[in-house]
Amino acid sequence: MAVNATQTRVRKAAIRLFAKKGFHGVGIRELAQAAKLSSASLYHYMGTKEELLADIMWDCLERLLSAAMLATTDVNDPQEKLGRLVALHVIAHAVQAKETTVVDNELRSLSPKLRRRIVAQRDAYEQLWAETIEEGARDGVFRSDKEGVARRGLLEMGSGVSRWYSSKGALPLDQLAERYAELALRSLGAGDDPPLPDLQRCRTIVKYTWGAKI
Amino acid sequence: MAVNATQTRVRKAAIRLFAKKGFHGVGIRELAQAAKLSSASLYHYMGTKEELLADIMWDCLERLLSAAMLATTDVNDPQEKLGRLVALHVIAHAVQAKETTVVDNELRSLSPKLRRRIVAQRDAYEQLWAETIEEGARDGVFRSDKEGVARRGLLEMGSGVSRWYSSKGALPLDQLAERYAELALRSLGAGDDPPLPDLQRCRTIVKYTWGAKI
Repeated sequence: MAVNATQTRVRKAAIRLFAKKGFHGVGIRELAQAAKLSSASLYHYMGTKEELLADIMWDCLERLLSAAMLATTDVNDPQEKLGRLVALHVIAHAVQAKETTVVDNELRSLSPKLRRRIVAQRDAYEQLWAETIEEGARDGVFRSDKEGVARRGLLEMGSGVSRWYSSKGALPLDQLAERYAELALRSLGAGDDPPLPDLQRCRTIVKYTWGAKI
Repeated sequence: MAVNATQTRVRKAAIRLFAKKGFHGVGIRELAQAAKLSSASLYHYMGTKEELLADIMWDCLERLLSAAMLATTDVNDPQEKLGRLVALHVIAHAVQAKETTVVDNELRSLSPKLRRRIVAQRDAYEQLWAETIEEGARDGVFRSDKEGVARRGLLEMGSGVSRWYSSKGALPLDQLAERYAELALRSLGAGDDPPLPDLQRCRTIVKYTWGAKI
């Protein structure tokens, strides 16, 4: 869907408010005010509030998925691949903290039909992680993760970054992403000094995907 | 603070609603209805809605902290200690998913004064993790974690369980807790086959601390 300037303004306001107060805590009037629109014209630009939420979540997951595909498509080594997936996930959750918070918190707020659409999109993203871990297990460099416990744990570990990351923190973002990649690779059994992923590449992809300043 | 039956009813209703709709998404009237009280008597039992939120968060963190102290107080080996901290955290987030969700999501909703009180309580809990990792690093069984990246990552990894755990899932809770302990210990560099923590003990402590059926 093409998105015009007013729609972008509405989305940005909604992301900020949903991240701060939760979906159910944001009224239409408040949202209209934040987007500098009347409540009536707001509906013109967004459909229902729930559709707006679903659009925001879908868009963020779509970007995560395409970034992850871009970062791993030319890579065969499962350790490098997983390191990139983790680093990308961490960088995205640090620089796009508000929208990833909305994705991580608000699945509960969607009605079944919209939820299914978003869950399918999230599953596609997680599937990339699952396949990479499986490839590593087949190659004997990772432990097997049949029930997806490691995959879920590592995704949540990285998502948590959006709760506390600050660009004024003790570690520069690159080092933080590197540490997470190390933790993840070691946890999967990749040995004590696993190879570090190509961070420059991950950073560039986040920049390209979100137009983010990092 | 002694808590009577009506207060317990109010808290339970609030935990359920805050976890489902977020703090800002729950109105006083809705909360009163869920607790089977009039709005006027609700105020008698809870003070302000924000104080109720802070009480819920404080109580949950207090239980987590005392459970973690109980589980580790007689243990010297940092690997066993950290394994227990992780297993306990995972079991608590699985069986007390709603209240831990409120703790994890709603810090943003507290005003600075109440937030400081809750953050201090959370810091005390995290301090136990930090000390254990430090002990392990001193003993040469863990990597050093000066900036707390591993501590934060492992806490978030375990907290994520409250988002998706179901007692009908593929893995029994004990095995799930065991897997997380393994992931955590390996990620810290404790070798490929780290020792598994005393799960029976962790389970008993969660039962005792929350009166939970597990």
